[in-house]
Amino acid sequence: MTMNRRFILAARPQGLPQESDFRLVDEPVPAIGESEFLVRNHYASIDPAIRGWLEPGGNYMPPVPIGDAVRASTIGVVEESRNPRFAPGQWVMGLNKIEHVSVGRGDGFTHPVDVSAVPSPTAYLSVAGAVGLTAWFGVEDVMQPRTGQTLLVSGAAGAVGSLVGQLARRRGVRTVGIAGGPAKCAKLIERYGYDAAIDYRGKDADALAEAIGQAAPDGVDFVYENVGGICLDAALMRINPGALVVICGLISEYNGAPYGTRNVWQLLVKTATMRGYLISQYVDRFPEGTRAMAALANEGAIVYDEHVEEGIERALPAMLRLFDGSNEGKMILKLV
Amino acid sequence: MTMNRRFILAARPQGLPQESDFRLVDEPVPAIGESEFLVRNHYASIDPAIRGWLEPGGNYMPPVPIGDAVRASTIGVVEESRNPRFAPGQWVMGLNKIEHVSVGRGDGFTHPVDVSAVPSPTAYLSVAGAVGLTAWFGVEDVMQPRTGQTLLVSGAAGAVGSLVGQLARRRGVRTVGIAGGPAKCAKLIERYGYDAAIDYRGKDADALAEAIGQAAPDGVDFVYENVGGICLDAALMRINPGALVVICGLISEYNGAPYGTRNVWQLLVKTATMRGYLISQYVDRFPEGTRAMAALANEGAIVYDEHVEEGIERALPAMLRLFDGSNEGKMILKLV
Repeated sequence: MTMNRRFILAARPQGLPQESDFRLVDEPVPAIGESEFLVRNHYASIDPAIRGWLEPGGNYMPPVPIGDAVRASTIGVVEESRNPRFAPGQWVMGLNKIEHVSVGRGDGFTHPVDVSAVPSPTAYLSVAGAVGLTAWFGVEDVMQPRTGQTLLVSGAAGAVGSLVGQLARRRGVRTVGIAGGPAKCAKLIERYGYDAAIDYRGKDADALAEAIGQAAPDGVDFVYENVGGICLDAALMRINPGALVVICGLISEYNGAPYGTRNVWQLLVKTATMRGYLISQYVDRFPEGTRAMAALANEGAIVYDEHVEEGIERALPAMLRLFDGSNEGKMILKLV
Repeated sequence: MTMNRRFILAARPQGLPQESDFRLVDEPVPAIGESEFLVRNHYASIDPAIRGWLEPGGNYMPPVPIGDAVRASTIGVVEESRNPRFAPGQWVMGLNKIEHVSVGRGDGFTHPVDVSAVPSPTAYLSVAGAVGLTAWFGVEDVMQPRTGQTLLVSGAAGAVGSLVGQLARRRGVRTVGIAGGPAKCAKLIERYGYDAAIDYRGKDADALAEAIGQAAPDGVDFVYENVGGICLDAALMRINPGALVVICGLISEYNGAPYGTRNVWQLLVKTATMRGYLISQYVDRFPEGTRAMAALANEGAIVYDEHVEEGIERALPAMLRLFDGSNEGKMILKLV
């Protein structure tokens, strides 16, 4: 009987997650039942959304139970199967857990993937995975911006933001990115092709609104919000009439008391729309998005970055880097 | 030469408008030029939006200049005309000023109205005027709620809210209204046909969210927000997946520092939409809305209330009643 190392939720975090909220355990790999299969997880995707799933009420998904392994998207190889749709040796991705071996049932998001179609298997957790699909449907379906329009992206150097800027720019959109620190801002321009970059550090909402006004003197037609807090408040002050503000994430608000957004009134006077967007709304169109993003990545038409931490022991440090902004690309945990 | 009494903006209000911010002046009625006409204003509509127009930056319209009469919708009779489309004796409504005589140019919203089609001319400032049209297009076009859905309305006893509830109920919608005090709450049920009424007084956002949860145990599919502040924050905690939150007004926030809305994150986890709505978006369809609301009022299919203050000297007290909630229906100032 092989053992399964698992990253278990021991207590619900108060604010920033800490070591005492988790423990690593080694448990026997369970026997599989009818229609089940075992996946050897090679990589887990460390996403801001995980923080929400640790809350008592969950966060658009049921909460991770205390004593269970933490939920995450993974990519891995089928090791043993009693499900005819999943053969041993097949690469699959799905919403599993941070653990060496997950039991699959073929439900939810789990599906086989073709690793020869992408530069590396990790692409299914980055450019051709949930973050890539989030960017793809966010730009191509939710916003559909047109040539000459202006898009403001917060968390622009992040896994989703870096792709959103590039996809929008391919549509002829003027892109303004917000990121933390001069190095990330330089990367926005030089690597991700943003037309303008704004460093939010050391700015309050008013100063940030001023900077957005300078970078986008004609106002912004779209806001793609990954951060919330002062980024959203400042962005609202610069929206054009009829603007669309897409709420994709509010990472600055996940570990503390919610920020109070003062400028909701701008939606009224600009007859603008603010819309919450989760990639789960597009589950039926995942294959289309995966193909499109994999093709763009293979052609080198878009660039993407992955930040790989090695070993399940690094699960918590990997998670914390999302919140202190020290990751350099899509955060991925290597498990095998 | 006849004189024109005018309600002039003397200084920009800080917080609640006060007497020293205005003055009444008597000026000669100006001579009219080519295409112009004079309107004897019989009634002026005292609306929350006026407060925004007094701000230095205006509020979706240019600010009222210091020294000019305060902007308002009026209904009156053409007294003299050099415009072939407006004949003396004709009733007209339009966006004019709080003054006895306005100079019309036939631009903007000014148009002739048929006072025989409504119970009284004031109907064009209430049920068949901007507030009626706001309710009509808000329900019939922006929201389009269906039988069995639930709508939450704040400011539900107000000029717009009382009509929104009735129009939604005609579509088979379950309606929950929020108002201030037991008398208004009783009126919601008994006069405006709301299914449930919630008194916001003495409640914080959490207590209000709790009360909404009791009145709408299956959550709310639509929020029609007239008030903002804790009403909006509490409503966001009770929205269903895919809900639409229509921001029609934020009257609780107009006279002070903007409230910080803490629950924007609910839009994300519920993939919900919040949309600013101004009746000016529907200017091309005003005749359709006017006909529909006038017909419903004439049939007695909907009830509406008007609160008429008499005399231009009452302009400020009328305005203040909007903000302390002591008006009992659409606030109208009788000028003639």
